[in-house]
Amino acid sequence: MTWNTNLRWRLPLLCLVLEVAMVVLFGLFVRYSPDADNRWSNEKRKGNITSDLENEFYYRYPSFQDVHVMVFLGFGFLMTFLQRYGYCALGFNFLLAALGVQWALLMQGWFQYTKNRRILLGIKNLIDADCCVASVCVAFGAVLGKVSPVQMLLMTFFQVALFSANEFLLLHVLEVKDAGGSITIHIFGAYFGLTVTWILYRHNLDHSKERQSSVYHSNLFAMIGTLFLWIYWPSFNSAMSNYGDAQHRAAINTYCSLAASVLTSVAMSSVLHKKGKLDMVHIQNATLAGGVGVGTAAEMMLMPYGALIVGFICGAVSTLGFVYLTPFLESRLRIQDTCGIHNLHGIPGIIGAIVGAVTAAYASPDGDRGFVYPFGFHNEKDEKVQGRFQAFGLLLTLAMAMVGGTIMGLILKLPFWGQATDEDCFDDSVYWEMHEEKSSSPEDHTHKPSVPTEPVEQPTSSATLAP
Amino acid sequence: MTWNTNLRWRLPLLCLVLEVAMVVLFGLFVRYSPDADNRWSNEKRKGNITSDLENEFYYRYPSFQDVHVMVFLGFGFLMTFLQRYGYCALGFNFLLAALGVQWALLMQGWFQYTKNRRILLGIKNLIDADCCVASVCVAFGAVLGKVSPVQMLLMTFFQVALFSANEFLLLHVLEVKDAGGSITIHIFGAYFGLTVTWILYRHNLDHSKERQSSVYHSNLFAMIGTLFLWIYWPSFNSAMSNYGDAQHRAAINTYCSLAASVLTSVAMSSVLHKKGKLDMVHIQNATLAGGVGVGTAAEMMLMPYGALIVGFICGAVSTLGFVYLTPFLESRLRIQDTCGIHNLHGIPGIIGAIVGAVTAAYASPDGDRGFVYPFGFHNEKDEKVQGRFQAFGLLLTLAMAMVGGTIMGLILKLPFWGQATDEDCFDDSVYWEMHEEKSSSPEDHTHKPSVPTEPVEQPTSSATLAP
Amino acid sequence: MTWNTNLRWRLPLLCLVLEVAMVVLFGLFVRYSPDADNRWSNEKRKGNITSDLENEFYYRYPSFQDVHVMVFLGFGFLMTFLQRYGYCALGFNFLLAALGVQWALLMQGWFQYTKNRRILLGIKNLIDADCCVASVCVAFGAVLGKVSPVQMLLMTFFQVALFSANEFLLLHVLEVKDAGGSITIHIFGAYFGLTVTWILYRHNLDHSKERQSSVYHSNLFAMIGTLFLWIYWPSFNSAMSNYGDAQHRAAINTYCSLAASVLTSVAMSSVLHKKGKLDMVHIQNATLAGGVGVGTAAEMMLMPYGALIVGFICGAVSTLGFVYLTPFLESRLRIQDTCGIHNLHGIPGIIGAIVGAVTAAYASPDGDRGFVYPFGFHNEKDEKVQGRFQAFGLLLTLAMAMVGGTIMGLILKLPFWGQATDEDCFDDSVYWEMHEEKSSSPEDHTHKPSVPTEPVEQPTSSATLAP
Repeated sequence: MTWNTNLRWRLPLLCLVLEVAMVVLFGLFVRYSPDADNRWSNEKRKGNITSDLENEFYYRYPSFQDVHVMVFLGFGFLMTFLQRYGYCALGFNFLLAALGVQWALLMQGWFQYTKNRRILLGIKNLIDADCCVASVCVAFGAVLGKVSPVQMLLMTFFQVALFSANEFLLLHVLEVKDAGGSITIHIFGAYFGLTVTWILYRHNLDHSKERQSSVYHSNLFAMIGTLFLWIYWPSFNSAMSNYGDAQHRAAINTYCSLAASVLTSVAMSSVLHKKGKLDMVHIQNATLAGGVGVGTAAEMMLMPYGALIVGFICGAVSTLGFVYLTPFLESRLRIQDTCGIHNLHGIPGIIGAIVGAVTAAYASPDGDRGFVYPFGFHNEKDEKVQGRFQAFGLLLTLAMAMVGGTIMGLILKLPFWGQATDEDCFDDSVYWEMHEEKSSSPEDHTHKPSVPTEPVEQPTSSATLAP
Repeated sequence: MTWNTNLRWRLPLLCLVLEVAMVVLFGLFVRYSPDADNRWSNEKRKGNITSDLENEFYYRYPSFQDVHVMVFLGFGFLMTFLQRYGYCALGFNFLLAALGVQWALLMQGWFQYTKNRRILLGIKNLIDADCCVASVCVAFGAVLGKVSPVQMLLMTFFQVALFSANEFLLLHVLEVKDAGGSITIHIFGAYFGLTVTWILYRHNLDHSKERQSSVYHSNLFAMIGTLFLWIYWPSFNSAMSNYGDAQHRAAINTYCSLAASVLTSVAMSSVLHKKGKLDMVHIQNATLAGGVGVGTAAEMMLMPYGALIVGFICGAVSTLGFVYLTPFLESRLRIQDTCGIHNLHGIPGIIGAIVGAVTAAYASPDGDRGFVYPFGFHNEKDEKVQGRFQAFGLLLTLAMAMVGGTIMGLILKLPFWGQATDEDCFDDSVYWEMHEEKSSSPEDHTHKPSVPTEPVEQPTSSATLAP
Repeated sequence: MTWNTNLRWRLPLLCLVLEVAMVVLFGLFVRYSPDADNRWSNEKRKGNITSDLENEFYYRYPSFQDVHVMVFLGFGFLMTFLQRYGYCALGFNFLLAALGVQWALLMQGWFQYTKNRRILLGIKNLIDADCCVASVCVAFGAVLGKVSPVQMLLMTFFQVALFSANEFLLLHVLEVKDAGGSITIHIFGAYFGLTVTWILYRHNLDHSKERQSSVYHSNLFAMIGTLFLWIYWPSFNSAMSNYGDAQHRAAINTYCSLAASVLTSVAMSSVLHKKGKLDMVHIQNATLAGGVGVGTAAEMMLMPYGALIVGFICGAVSTLGFVYLTPFLESRLRIQDTCGIHNLHGIPGIIGAIVGAVTAAYASPDGDRGFVYPFGFHNEKDEKVQGRFQAFGLLLTLAMAMVGGTIMGLILKLPFWGQATDEDCFDDSVYWEMHEEKSSSPEDHTHKPSVPTEPVEQPTSSATLAP
C-alpha cells in the first residue's frame, strides 16, 4: 500500500496547513455578529440601541442543533451501511464536515455576511455553514469508499468555495427562493459528486465487490442515520426561513412530504422485488426523498396535500432509481455511485426545483388564485418572472456543478493523493489501525493454523464478523 | 412461504391505496392553521389582526422534535432487541408511524381541529398526531414478530381512528386531564395491543423460540431506543401542556419520576435474579415506567417528591411484572406479549391514571390544601367530581381498547393477510431481502461443505452472528 | 465470583435505601420554583405580580435537552468501546446518572437555590444537576471496567456532594467565571477519578487484557456517543449562560473550537502512527478536547479565532496524551485510566482554565483593549484580580479533587463492595444475565464438542463476536 509508506505525511500536513490557514483567516476577517458581542449588548442595556436582533439566536438555535445532528451524525451513520467501511464513513465524514464548516463560514461570509471588511458571525452563519457542508456530504456519498482522505479534503475545500459562489448567485443575484436547498444543496452536491466519480471511474471495482454490500448490523447502524435525517428534516428545510408563518409552514410541508414518501418507498420496494420482499437500501434512502423534493417549495403556500403529492412521487421515483437507474449508470455511463445519491438527491432535487418553479409561477400577491399564495414579491418581479428565475437557477446550478466536478475530478485523478488500489476500496484497514487484529488473535480461532480444512480467505471473512 | 408468492401484491397495493386516499382527503379537508398561512400573516403585518398565535410554533417546536425522535427512533430501536428482527422492528415501525401520522392528522382533525369544514394544520396537530402514533407503537410491541406488514397497516388504520374517538370523548366530553397520556396513549395502546395478541394466539410459537431472545449487539441497539425515550420523555409529557408554569412543571415532574424508576428497576432486577445479576430487559423497559406513571399528573401540582414516589413504585412494579406477570399471562391467559408492554405501559398507565384521579380529587382552587394545588377549574366542576371523571375516563378507555382490540383481532385472524407461520415468526428474512447471504458466501466458511463435522443448523446460527 | 453469592443483596439494598432517602429529603426540602408553581401563575394572571421569569424555561429548555442527551446517552455510548463491557457502560452510567441528578438537585439546591429553607426547583436546577453528573461520568471513565456497581454508587454519592461544595466555593465565593465548566466539571471530575483509580491500582490487570481492546462494532457504538457529545457541546457550554449575547457567544466559540480540534486530532493521530494510519481512540476522544478547552472562556469575548486556536492546541495535545502520556501514567505512576480521561478532560481542562484566566485578566470594561472585551465586573474586582481568582479557583479545585479522590479511593479499597477480581474486569457477564449463552447454544457451533481441532478458548472468542 503506497499510501502508507511514501505518502503518509500528506494527510497530517494537509490537515495542519488547512487549520493554520483557518486560524489566520479567522483572525483577519471574522468577528462576532452584533447580537453575540458584549459591547453591543452593553449599549443596548444602557438604552442607546433598541433592537430585537438577539431573539434570532433563540428562534433559530433549536433548528440549528437539529441540522448539526443531520450533518455530523445523520450523513455519517447513513454511510455506515457498507460492511467494512464504517470507520471511514464516520471518521472521514466527521473530518470533512469539521473542515467544511470553518471554510464555509469564511466563503459564505465573504459572499454574504461581510460588513466593513469583517465577517459577522452569528447563529445564521452557523446554520448556513452546516447546510453548505450537507452538500459536501451528499457528494461524498458518490465517491464513498474510493477516495483517500487527502482527496476528500481537497474536494471539500473546492466544493465549499464553489457552493458559496453558486449560492450567492442564486439567492442574492437571481433572488431564487430555495428554503430547503433542493437546488443549492441537493442538486449541486449530487451532480458535483456524480461528475467527480465519473471522472474517477475505476475499472476493476468488482475486485472489492464483496465489501460493497452490507451486513446485518451495518444496516442497523445505517438506520440510525436514516432516522435522524428523516426526523430532523423539517428543521433542515425551515432553519433559514423567516420568523413566523414561513418557518411554521416549511416544517409542516416537510413533515407531510416525508411521511408520504415512506409509504411509496415501501410499496415500490416490494413491487420491484421478485418475491415481494423489502430492501433495506430503499428504506434507508428513498424514504428521505420527500424531504429533498419539498426543499425549494417548503416555505411556499404548497398546501399540505401538495406536499403529500411531492412526497408520493419522490419516494416512488427514488426507489425506481435504485432498482433501474443505478445499475444503468454504472454499466453504461461509468458512473459508480456508491450510495445512490442520484436517486436520493439528484432526481428528487430536480423534482423539487420544478415544484418550486411551478409553485412560484402560480403564486398571486393577493392570495386568491387557486392552490398557491404569494411568498413575497419585494423585488418587483411578478410571479411568472419568478418562475423563470427559479428554472434558470436550476440550470445554472447544474452547469456549475458539472464544470466544477470535472475540474475537481481531473485534479483528483493526479496520482499523488494516496488513492487506494481497486482491490483496497471499501476497506477500513487501509486507513485505520484495526486494534482487534492484534489483540484478539490469541483467542481467535480463525487465525489458528490448526484447522486445516478451512479456506484461506477466512481471516478476512471473520474480520467482517467483528473480532 | 405463502406470503411471498400469492400475497406479494397485497402490501404495495395497500400502501399505495392508503397513500392515494391520504392525498385526496388532505386535498379535500386539510388547510394550514392561520399562523402557518401567508394571508393571515399579511393581514397581521398590515395591522388588521393582532395576535401572538405564531409564538405557539416556537414554544412547542423543540418539544415536538423530541417527541418525533421518540416515536420514529425511540420505539423503533427499543424493539430491535430481538436477535434477528431488527429490520422489521425499524422498518415496520417506520412504516406504521408514517401512515399513522397522516391518518391521525385527519382523524384528530375531524374530531378536534375543524373550522368551516376544514382541518387547520399547525404545530399542535403534528404533536398530537405523533402522540397518537405512540399509542400504535405501544400496541405494536405486543404483536411484534408475529404479524405481517399488511396486518400492521390495518391495525394502525383502525387503532388511530379508535384512538381519536376515545381521545375526543375523554379530553373534550369528559374533560379529563391527561397531559402525558397515561390513559389515552399508554393504557389505550397497551390493552388494545394485548387484546389483539390474545385473539391472535399462536400455539407453536416455541418453534421460533431461539429467535425470541436477544444477542449482545441487539441489546446495545435497543439501548439507543431506551435512552432516547428516557431522555426525551419530559418533552413528551409537557408537549401539549399550556404555555408557562404547566409546561415547566410537567417537565420537572417527569424528570424526577424517571430518575427514581431507574434506581428501583435496577434494585428489583438484581433482587429477582437468583445470582443477583442484572437483566438488560428490565433496564431497557422498566426504567421508562416512571414516565408512563407520571403521565396524567405531570402538569398537576404533584410536587417533586410525589413524582419520585410514582417513579419509585412504577419502576419496581414494572420489573416485577417482567419477572412474574409476563410468563403467567403467556402460559395461563394465552397472551403472548413480545415486548412486555403490559409491564411498561399497561400497569404503569393504570398507576398513572389513579395518581391523576387522586391528585385531581385533592386539588383546591386556592392552593392551601396539603399536597396539591389547583390545575384549573374553568368547567365549573369541583375537585371531587373531576376525580370521578378521571376514574370514569380510565374505565371507558379500557372498555374501548378491549372491544376495539377484539374486533381488530378477529379481522386480523382472517387467513389472507400474509401472516408468517409459527416457525417463521421473529425472522427478518421472511419480509426482507438479506443481501449478505449472497454476497458473503464466497468467503464465508460457514457455507462451505468442506467442514463436515459441523451441524446443519450452522448457517442460521452464523447468520445471527452478523456476516 | 464472590459478588454473586455473598454480596448479592448489597446492590439492591443500596439502591432502595438511597431512593427512599431521596424521596424523604425531597419531601422535606424540595418545592417548585415560582415559575413552575400554579399559585404564582395565578397571582400573575390576576395581575398581582409582574415578572417574565417563566421565559427562562423556554430559553433554557432546548439546551437542557441537549445536555441531557450528552450525559445519559453521550457518555454512556462513548464508553461502549470495550468489546465486552457495553452493558455495564450503558447500564451503570444510566444508574449513576439517575442517582446523581437527584442527589445533585439536593446538594446544589442546599448550596445555591434555597429560599426559606426550601429548595426551589426549576429548569436551571435540572441543567445544573446534569452538569454535576457529567463530572461523575468523567470520573467513571477512569475506573470503567474495574469497579462494581456498589462502588460506583458510593463514588457518585460522595463525588456529587464534593462537586457541589467546590462549585459553590468557586462560583459564589471566589466568583470565578466558568460557563462550560472546564474547572468545576472537567478538571474536578478528571483528577477525582484519576486519584481514585490510582488508589485502586490493580496489579494483574493484564489478565483481562484481551477484553480491554475494542472490536469493530464496539467502535461504531462508541462513535454514537462521540458524535452526540461533539454536536451538543455548544449547548453544554452555553446552557447556564445569561440570556442574550453571552449564550450566543458561548455557542459560537464552542462550535469553532470543536471544529478545529477535529482537524488537529486527525493530523496527530496519523503522524504518530508508524504507518500513518488513524486510530479510532483518538477520533472518539481527542476531537472533543476543543469543547473542554473552551469551557471556561466560552462566554467571554474570546473571538472566533481565539476559539480556533484553543481547539487547535487541545486536539493536538489530547492526541499526544493518548499516545505517550497514558502508557507512561500506567507503567510509571500506576494510574490505570481506562478511557484516557486525563487526555480528554484533564489536560484540556487545565488549558481551558488558563485560557479563561488570561482572557479574564486582559478584559477591559470599555472593550477597547485588543483581543478581549469585558464580561461583566459587577463585583468591583478589576480584571487582573479576576484573572488571579480564576487561577486560584483552578488550584483549589485540583486540591479538593485529589484529597477527595484519595479519601474515596481508600473507602472503595475496603474489601466488601463486591469488586470483581483482576481476571473478571471488563466483563459484562460478571454483573449481567447473558441471555444468548443459553438460548443460542443449541445452534451455536462453537459450543459443540464435535469439532475437536478447535482450541479451548473459542467460546470466549465467539462470545466476542456477538451471540
